[in-house]
Amino acid sequence: MDEGKCKEASSKYHMIGGHGPNSYSLNSEYQKQLLVSAEDLIKELTHEHLNIDENPSLITHNNTFRIADFGCSIGPNTFFAVENIISAIENKSNQNNSDIPEFQVFFNDLIDNDCNTLFRNIPKSRQYFVAAVPGSFYGQLFPKATLHFAHCSTALHWLSKIPKKVTETSSISWNKGRIHYSGAANEVKKAYSDQYEEDMDVFLSARGKELVNGGLMVLVVLCFPDGVLSSDSSIGVAFDIFGSCLKDMVKIGKISEEKMDSFNLPFYYPWPSEMKALIEANGLFHIEKIAKLASPMRSKPDAQVLTYHLRAVIGGLIEQHFGNGVVEELFTNHLEKLSRSPILVDDKYWKETNYFIYLKRKDG
Amino acid sequence: MDEGKCKEASSKYHMIGGHGPNSYSLNSEYQKQLLVSAEDLIKELTHEHLNIDENPSLITHNNTFRIADFGCSIGPNTFFAVENIISAIENKSNQNNSDIPEFQVFFNDLIDNDCNTLFRNIPKSRQYFVAAVPGSFYGQLFPKATLHFAHCSTALHWLSKIPKKVTETSSISWNKGRIHYSGAANEVKKAYSDQYEEDMDVFLSARGKELVNGGLMVLVVLCFPDGVLSSDSSIGVAFDIFGSCLKDMVKIGKISEEKMDSFNLPFYYPWPSEMKALIEANGLFHIEKIAKLASPMRSKPDAQVLTYHLRAVIGGLIEQHFGNGVVEELFTNHLEKLSRSPILVDDKYWKETNYFIYLKRKDG
Repeated sequence: MDEGKCKEASSKYHMIGGHGPNSYSLNSEYQKQLLVSAEDLIKELTHEHLNIDENPSLITHNNTFRIADFGCSIGPNTFFAVENIISAIENKSNQNNSDIPEFQVFFNDLIDNDCNTLFRNIPKSRQYFVAAVPGSFYGQLFPKATLHFAHCSTALHWLSKIPKKVTETSSISWNKGRIHYSGAANEVKKAYSDQYEEDMDVFLSARGKELVNGGLMVLVVLCFPDGVLSSDSSIGVAFDIFGSCLKDMVKIGKISEEKMDSFNLPFYYPWPSEMKALIEANGLFHIEKIAKLASPMRSKPDAQVLTYHLRAVIGGLIEQHFGNGVVEELFTNHLEKLSRSPILVDDKYWKETNYFIYLKRKDG
Repeated sequence: MDEGKCKEASSKYHMIGGHGPNSYSLNSEYQKQLLVSAEDLIKELTHEHLNIDENPSLITHNNTFRIADFGCSIGPNTFFAVENIISAIENKSNQNNSDIPEFQVFFNDLIDNDCNTLFRNIPKSRQYFVAAVPGSFYGQLFPKATLHFAHCSTALHWLSKIPKKVTETSSISWNKGRIHYSGAANEVKKAYSDQYEEDMDVFLSARGKELVNGGLMVLVVLCFPDGVLSSDSSIGVAFDIFGSCLKDMVKIGKISEEKMDSFNLPFYYPWPSEMKALIEANGLFHIEKIAKLASPMRSKPDAQVLTYHLRAVIGGLIEQHFGNGVVEELFTNHLEKLSRSPILVDDKYWKETNYFIYLKRKDG
């Protein structure tokens, strides 16, 4: 059990639990829309690539089919995702005149994810068995060859940790005065991409162990088109704005400069070509499909909605690093600055695209 | 998924979470001592009855061994219990020169159990994969034939619900002025034992589905010796004292008589002969052993410790039924009355005995 890595990540990185106005459960419509976009792709590709007859190990001798959602948060999106997968398997079984298996669904997220809320959100009418698996997905979480379908949507941009170099004042990768690699020196970007490369290999190797031969995996990954820089995107601009709000707090003495300089966001957004190369380098999976998904929210960005969304995702990180006293003021300031930002009116900033990646575990 | 029953039980029955002075985690030494008593028995019997060679289905083709602890609460006792089972399997595997399997451990308790605390308590140094399974164990919680070892300690005295008749004012089983069948009319006891019979059959049938042929199950069940009445035991006396504290609150107008009359404790303590008959009537398990366990605490009962223990177990039920306003006063009053009770000084009241029951799933 890769406790070192688990522990490092779990102490900080989780969504805001409960059902309040800043909770993830009320601010996850974006992620939901992505799952809707992926729905038909999952059905089609699963019909094509779930080879029950050719590969009997795909369904165990007990006729149990195990699905895991990695980085599930607290619902309801995770239920939508796994129920879509179940429906795809059922369709395939019906068309093959095979018995429909019993489904066991595992919901994974970090130890500090609000599992109590997740459990209360599980649909009462479900037709599957459930379990929650705590721990970082950058490590093996299941016994060897016991999963049949893995799913991980809009979670892989979370790095396992902040690259060490970007917080070391003596390093050429020190990210002084910024909170992300957007707009920073190349060395900072390189430190982030090195960490991403390492994390993706750990992720793919862990899933490679857990999945049976022929097992399937869907990843939904937020990317920038090949060659596009983070700093030219709405995400990069929003992070810059948030960074400037922190600087404002430094100016009025509410937080120290050192405190600000030691804060960085643990997010990385790869290019699709980069993602493809990392999967190929890992070598455990066939790439069956890489496709763009329609981008939710692009039609009508709203400063309040975007700020709520940002707060649901990074509010916990901010509070952990800077304390509770500054959170409200920071996001109020962010909303005000964001409202005057060109990203609300100019389409050219909306370049980030979610990629749907469908993988199949190679035999071995 | 037997949602009706799950929902009914889950809304009320769970230990007090967290780490406070009234928490289960600080007041579960009694249960811990029982697990220690059971430790050697589990090792010996597992050596005798885990027939890996005779019954290959006992270890799946993937070499994963699945253990579930039903009614696990929030730790640390559950970790002690499952690690003892793992150690027993490892010993057996070593003696057989078999490969040691990978272990996957499932912690089960009701949906409202504090899973966040459970996850934080999981030992960092563990050598097994973990998952939590929410829901009432009076219903199937795992796919068919996917478990190898089930464990349930000091949890089966919790009924799935209060027998309906004991709260119906028109019924001859109406339990007016009392909170338990201890010392009540025979009809009240009968309503409780009917409910227990129904619950045990549901429990054994569910585990019978989940366990592989030859799969093993340990139950630790609090019983009275054959023929001994609950009312002659320290448990019965303590419940009577608690009932009298509720009556005191009725007298001073802090709670209504109706409110008190509608409250009953969902606990049943069978005789060993009754337990044996229920397992035989169910028919799915061989009884390999029924043995008494040494009784913790018997040597030196302490009113404060007993009251803390009672509060950790029933505090949640009291608060749910009567509101938070009366809890402190009730348990203070209980402590005072208990301090003057003969059960603290007279050994004759300490008749309850925990029975260790070792079962093996019949082939079928």
